[in-house]
Amino acid sequence: MPHITLPPGHSPGISGLLMYRPETAGPLRELVQVLLLGPSSLTPAEREIIAASVSWWNGCHFCHTSHAAAACAHLGRGPELIDAIKAGLPDEPLSPKLRALLHIAQLTQQGGRQVTEGAVAAARAAGATDIEVHDTVLIAAAFCMFNRYVDGLNTWAWPEKERFMEIGRKMAKGYMEPYVPSAP
Amino acid sequence: MPHITLPPGHSPGISGLLMYRPETAGPLRELVQVLLLGPSSLTPAEREIIAASVSWWNGCHFCHTSHAAAACAHLGRGPELIDAIKAGLPDEPLSPKLRALLHIAQLTQQGGRQVTEGAVAAARAAGATDIEVHDTVLIAAAFCMFNRYVDGLNTWAWPEKERFMEIGRKMAKGYMEPYVPSAP
Repeated sequence: MPHITLPPGHSPGISGLLMYRPETAGPLRELVQVLLLGPSSLTPAEREIIAASVSWWNGCHFCHTSHAAAACAHLGRGPELIDAIKAGLPDEPLSPKLRALLHIAQLTQQGGRQVTEGAVAAARAAGATDIEVHDTVLIAAAFCMFNRYVDGLNTWAWPEKERFMEIGRKMAKGYMEPYVPSAP
Repeated sequence: MPHITLPPGHSPGISGLLMYRPETAGPLRELVQVLLLGPSSLTPAEREIIAASVSWWNGCHFCHTSHAAAACAHLGRGPELIDAIKAGLPDEPLSPKLRALLHIAQLTQQGGRQVTEGAVAAARAAGATDIEVHDTVLIAAAFCMFNRYVDGLNTWAWPEKERFMEIGRKMAKGYMEPYVPSAP
């Protein structure tokens, strides 16, 4: 049960919180929209995989599963990709650049001072630009916020990953509109 | 030295990053403006103390010292308050409500799932409203982002707390404008 009183029938995870507090919802929606779907040399799927991985490392079931489902939507994949992201994508043909950026994201999740010159140099050697390093650090940092917001207020989420495929499709189209689940 | 190339003479901490990437700077500025200075039953000084405390627990010198300096500006205090925030404000006449909210902020900093029903009940018993609990969790979560952004890209900052009093006065007036330090 959420730590604060949300309206009966409120949407899961961050969706219910964004409806509860529209003053902060505006900049939060704009931030995730530009970070994950704005112009970038990283694909939306690559950025969703970074977001979903950080959320998994932070133990946030709602953010992990919904952003992994958004990656599924971008890539035309089924929910098995959600479990693959949990496992670190060992069998997926990720570019060396994305693997190096995921390492920077993991260090950022552990703490800002954990990001080393060596990890950044490795990403650069794999072809990452300064903007890609910047955006990776900011995506990882932003999900350290979103994850704490969602779990710190103890919001609800479906247990089954399959149930997230609908919200993933909606997220892949944009983050500016409220999400209300379809009837089960 | 920052992990990415910022222009010569760039501003310290997050200020240089906000000028580097205006696409993400917009929502980040709006978020901190509404969270710390928007309409609220928590005073701006109380909210800056929460932000500065979380930044201290995350080991982020720039965010801690600048937001503590903003609290000094709101309260008309000298830089000794910056050290008092580091120490947990043992000798300041904080309200029981603010102490209970600082406890929720500390649990949020440790991880979203660390926030307990008991900590929220204690804040409510001390007079906190649902919106105040919500905003405290979101301020703490947001500074887990800002701190990782600033330190994950290894930005520079002045060592001396006294040097932050100018930026603190500027922050107390608003977060929407870029900050360029005056000549030393």
